Amino acid sequence: MDFLDEPFPDVGTYEDFHTIDWLREKSRDTDRHRKITTKSKESYWELIKSLLDAWSGWVVMLLIGMLTGTLAGVIDLAVDWMTDLKEGVCLSALYYSREQCCWTSNETTFEDRDKCPQWQKWAELMTGHSEGAGAYVLNYFLYVLWALLFSFLAVSLVRVFAPYACGSGIPEIKTILSGFIIRGYLGKWTLLIKTVTLVLAVSSGLSLGKEGPLVHVACCCGNLFCSLFSKYSKNEGKRREVLSAAAAAGVSVAFGAPIGGVLFSLEEVSYYFPLKTLWRSFFAALVAAFTLRAINPFGNSRLVLFYVEYHTPWYMAELVPFILLGVFGGLWGTTLLGKYPVLEVIVITGITAVLAFPNPYTRRSTSELISELFNDCGALESSQLCDYVNNPNMSRPVDDIPDRPAGPGVYSALWQLALALIFKIVITIFTFGMKIPSGLFIPSMAVGAIAGRIVGIAVEQMAYHHHDWIIFKNWCRPGADCVTPGLYAMVGAAACLGGVTRMTVSLVVIMFELTGGLEYIVPLMAAAVTSKWVADAFGKEGIYESHIQLNGYPYLDVRDEFTHRTLATDVMRPRRSEPPLAVLTQDSTTVEDVETLIKDTDYNGFPVVVSRESERLIGFVQRRELTVAIKTARQKQDGVVSSSVVYFTEDNPQVAEACDPQPLKLRRILNLSPFTVTDHTPMETVVDIFRKLGLRQCLVTRSGRLLGIITKKDVLRHMAQMMNQDPESIMFN
Amino acid sequence: MDFLDEPFPDVGTYEDFHTIDWLREKSRDTDRHRKITTKSKESYWELIKSLLDAWSGWVVMLLIGMLTGTLAGVIDLAVDWMTDLKEGVCLSALYYSREQCCWTSNETTFEDRDKCPQWQKWAELMTGHSEGAGAYVLNYFLYVLWALLFSFLAVSLVRVFAPYACGSGIPEIKTILSGFIIRGYLGKWTLLIKTVTLVLAVSSGLSLGKEGPLVHVACCCGNLFCSLFSKYSKNEGKRREVLSAAAAAGVSVAFGAPIGGVLFSLEEVSYYFPLKTLWRSFFAALVAAFTLRAINPFGNSRLVLFYVEYHTPWYMAELVPFILLGVFGGLWGTTLLGKYPVLEVIVITGITAVLAFPNPYTRRSTSELISELFNDCGALESSQLCDYVNNPNMSRPVDDIPDRPAGPGVYSALWQLALALIFKIVITIFTFGMKIPSGLFIPSMAVGAIAGRIVGIAVEQMAYHHHDWIIFKNWCRPGADCVTPGLYAMVGAAACLGGVTRMTVSLVVIMFELTGGLEYIVPLMAAAVTSKWVADAFGKEGIYESHIQLNGYPYLDVRDEFTHRTLATDVMRPRRSEPPLAVLTQDSTTVEDVETLIKDTDYNGFPVVVSRESERLIGFVQRRELTVAIKTARQKQDGVVSSSVVYFTEDNPQVAEACDPQPLKLRRILNLSPFTVTDHTPMETVVDIFRKLGLRQCLVTRSGRLLGIITKKDVLRHMAQMMNQDPESIMFN
Repeated sequence: MDFLDEPFPDVGTYEDFHTIDWLREKSRDTDRHRKITTKSKESYWELIKSLLDAWSGWVVMLLIGMLTGTLAGVIDLAVDWMTDLKEGVCLSALYYSREQCCWTSNETTFEDRDKCPQWQKWAELMTGHSEGAGAYVLNYFLYVLWALLFSFLAVSLVRVFAPYACGSGIPEIKTILSGFIIRGYLGKWTLLIKTVTLVLAVSSGLSLGKEGPLVHVACCCGNLFCSLFSKYSKNEGKRREVLSAAAAAGVSVAFGAPIGGVLFSLEEVSYYFPLKTLWRSFFAALVAAFTLRAINPFGNSRLVLFYVEYHTPWYMAELVPFILLGVFGGLWGTTLLGKYPVLEVIVITGITAVLAFPNPYTRRSTSELISELFNDCGALESSQLCDYVNNPNMSRPVDDIPDRPAGPGVYSALWQLALALIFKIVITIFTFGMKIPSGLFIPSMAVGAIAGRIVGIAVEQMAYHHHDWIIFKNWCRPGADCVTPGLYAMVGAAACLGGVTRMTVSLVVIMFELTGGLEYIVPLMAAAVTSKWVADAFGKEGIYESHIQLNGYPYLDVRDEFTHRTLATDVMRPRRSEPPLAVLTQDSTTVEDVETLIKDTDYNGFPVVVSRESERLIGFVQRRELTVAIKTARQKQDGVVSSSVVYFTEDNPQVAEACDPQPLKLRRILNLSPFTVTDHTPMETVVDIFRKLGLRQCLVTRSGRLLGIITKKDVLRHMAQMMNQDPESIMFN
Repeated sequence: MDFLDEPFPDVGTYEDFHTIDWLREKSRDTDRHRKITTKSKESYWELIKSLLDAWSGWVVMLLIGMLTGTLAGVIDLAVDWMTDLKEGVCLSALYYSREQCCWTSNETTFEDRDKCPQWQKWAELMTGHSEGAGAYVLNYFLYVLWALLFSFLAVSLVRVFAPYACGSGIPEIKTILSGFIIRGYLGKWTLLIKTVTLVLAVSSGLSLGKEGPLVHVACCCGNLFCSLFSKYSKNEGKRREVLSAAAAAGVSVAFGAPIGGVLFSLEEVSYYFPLKTLWRSFFAALVAAFTLRAINPFGNSRLVLFYVEYHTPWYMAELVPFILLGVFGGLWGTTLLGKYPVLEVIVITGITAVLAFPNPYTRRSTSELISELFNDCGALESSQLCDYVNNPNMSRPVDDIPDRPAGPGVYSALWQLALALIFKIVITIFTFGMKIPSGLFIPSMAVGAIAGRIVGIAVEQMAYHHHDWIIFKNWCRPGADCVTPGLYAMVGAAACLGGVTRMTVSLVVIMFELTGGLEYIVPLMAAAVTSKWVADAFGKEGIYESHIQLNGYPYLDVRDEFTHRTLATDVMRPRRSEPPLAVLTQDSTTVEDVETLIKDTDYNGFPVVVSRESERLIGFVQRRELTVAIKTARQKQDGVVSSSVVYFTEDNPQVAEACDPQPLKLRRILNLSPFTVTDHTPMETVVDIFRKLGLRQCLVTRSGRLLGIITKKDVLRHMAQMMNQDPESIMFN
């Protein structure tokens, strides 16, 4: 028996920052599956084991959903509490946020609902005075101090313990899902630090959101549970199926939108998404959403982050402002793509806190702000934004209020919103790229929502004061409720989010899940399409793609169309001026030759040919497996010395003389079905093959003779060249 | 200049019942696109043309959406009118359906709303008596007569004018989308006849639905508009992108569920679904849905077919009946898969009409039945199903009615429902497979909804009468509203639909769009998963797949996992006992040889090798192009005779003597990048390559020597063999 029939240790794993071979992973999984199926017929125990194996996918999904939902709930609660901690504290229980504190207080009548004696601002607690300039300054000072403390803690924890925890993580996850290995990026340590620092970063009041990082957190959970099952931990392809589903669960809890989450994963994040994954992702997303609802961090038993109910239809004429909001969103998407360096977190936090405190719209948490901006003004709304002049003899139901003139509250709110808009735009641009967990979803939505609400109120007041204008005459009679400013805010938010991420269907679906009605899909679509077109016209790529390029990850985008006329021969190595390809022959290379080749080159593998003269290809051997095989043979197999011949043929070679050293048979590690294309194959087809089959490399032949090799990096380099980019910037360093 | 540089007429088209080559179609589109881009820099006119070309995709989607929505609206209106015509007629306007007739009547008070003097049953109109046995018999007789007339018209029209119009068409559309050519299947004639006969078939009262056929109708619209743009009409690959989107529009109008439609197209129907198509499908689905709403055939301005609003949550204990309904749905899915022959349409219609008339639940249209079964019983509900014994001192709001004991109406309704269930099951099984347009969605949903409602009422009454039972004690206190029978009906409908089609995510999303709340997703999912598992356990495939197999279409399912250990060498032709592969040599075949080869074989193409001795592959030439090229050369090129040498090399061959006939250069039609695999490639990988790249054939080599060829049909035949099916049954005849 040949000892090499035993599997080598470590064979099948990849090195850090290398690309996986999807076809190989898939065929390894089929082998595993075949073995289990065969065994399962042998005994009941094996049958049970095979059933467990078949169910492990669902178990992993269940676990991911539950942990993701729980973490999201914990993060929500912690952020709520710490955001309020900057302003004051709950006397009845220190760990209560303001809202929880005031729930438990006994003032339940309508007039007293804004009073809450248990909740004390810092100044009141420390000096006993709640009014006056002194108290204001003290509150202001402590607000800034807390913010600085939180952000300092966040940035230090990230720097010291888990540098991978910074940013949203979505570009890296896209790259990992496309088949790249980044060890530790989805590790336990990253999970822990990211969760903690995410809370700190959001609570510090910086202009960042927790939604993007939640996707990273969910993928860390996915990776964690993969390690429980050898089916997933030992197969990088299967692992990525789980991670795709985890990403869906992450978005699901971020917005309370399970279907949107699945589509986000499908449209934005995933690379290989078989239908089985679609179904499982949906399951994970649902479990996550329901776990989160069970924790109920928002205290309203709603699944969604921003629940809204509008009572008025929209009119065709309103499409004009909606499309304008789309243009704004597209412009916002391109603004962010500047390459601002990493600025000091503390400075930005200080500036953010100092500027944010005086304006009520920037002081509160961004999610609350968006929530208020989306809201329709009912009759009982106490918000400043709903301070309209009421008609005294109004006797309509609560949900059908006609357009009214704006009161002084609305006008002052408008000013504050305009200032908040400028502030948010500037500060988000500077916050973006800081080395702490940070997402762009919520800040972008906030920018859009503010702009939208301003436009909405403007249109509403115009319609009220100028019923007779030709544009309003047809659809807005006096006394009718024709404009919903909250809807404008929502359209604006969708437009800005779409401009940044270039999401399309998933964006509309997420928004649809928030509103729960098909009624408003057309305005949302109009804005999303406009913003995508405007953003595409200015900068070619979305935030994730440009981040991937900035970092030089080897990501082969499914959406980039390759339309140049180059052929495989133009891309393959070696080029004309380069030395010939490093190959092995099937029966004339010695162990020493192979070892020299391994030492002198850093290729991932070597083609094996019949002979150097004929150059007819018979297979491909991986560098890693070659190294391991020779090392093992040297240790365990007698008679293998440096001058032993390595042979890959099926039959043993004729040993000419007795004194010749024993040959080393390595056919077992030879891949007999390497992927080949002819030198005349258009690069367009080659790119397509790399994408769809997830290849690592491909050999180039002409009428059976080996000419060269094309690796995934060669393809990426060539694509960069064709787009007049610096090909070296593409490569991960 | 070589005359062969001119494109041949007809090159690039495929014959009927042949498979397209996706890679080739794609590369042809890229060429076209490249040409337009280059030209667009030349003049403004070309620039405008290139912009128009870029926009044509959206224009096609808009047109498809509008036509599909319009046709769906017209079909709905016509079906409504003709279904009612079987019972009576509207005196004020003959073309009004009963509902429209009664709208316009003046009895608008609540008590009189069921009276409607303008609407007269046939007996009343003809004899003046509306009551009594005589009137009943006359009505009965005319009902059956009308039904027979409609179905006779339907079956005759299909038989005479468009045999492709029968069935739902979804299996064929799946096959077409996977790259098969069936000429006329999506033609104008099919569109017209299908639309007309669909109305007739549904109105005849047969147990069939219009939802599946609407997908076919939408795809016909898609094909129609493709012919307006050469971009789509001349490229079979691009055409299929449009058809995928059209299928989404079809489902969108069938259920009023645009998102569900897109997912249905993605999950069930489509083969090649790039992200661009996702976005466009969504657009087409939305346009279709809004066009339908503008026509407003249901008269309620709702987009969805069955709009429901429930007010009670569901409880964990209820999952047990929900899962039981799932089992029922799965069993229903397997029942239908029997191979009942085509029975006589008229006989079945007669039996259906005779049996359906006496039972109120089978007499009305199936959609109305489902609608009523889904409904929650509000206080004002007049349906027999809502005949509960009311608590006299009830003072709750309309939408929160506690569980009540069933009245006599409910009990008699239960009996009628049980009879209707048996009737529907039996008659649907016999109706299935008839040669008229027929869908299974609605009959399946009806079967499930009836079963679900029965179970729901049973659980409700159990809960009312036995509050103290341990299973009810925790969640169902006396006076509480704990069971919603309508929800059970919906879960049952989803389960049966899932069992038949094996839809998963799209099913849940369609149901979600119907209810508009995430609340009930878990029951729906539980039922859908159970029914899928049960159905999978009994019969391996869904209705569409088994239909495809029955008809022997060459469909390579993306979902079938190929897990056998065979290699390419086991599948390739020629087998050991067969004569060697028919090949051409690059410079030693004469025109006569080629013509003989074409005459003697029926292969789609021939590999070209260096020489018969070395067998080194240099390319592949299509039969069709070879035939055309030789025919053209014989006509137009002087000196080409039977003994002329055909050569495929780059350089002109040495013409040895002056008397030798002039050679024929055919390199232009040689595909220099044929797809090859080695003989050791696992079939699993080969299947994957065929699926993902959409190949037509693939050559097999070993160290550069050509060994054989694998076509898509070889792959399918092998897969059938491995699953112990008759390989010959797989092939389309």
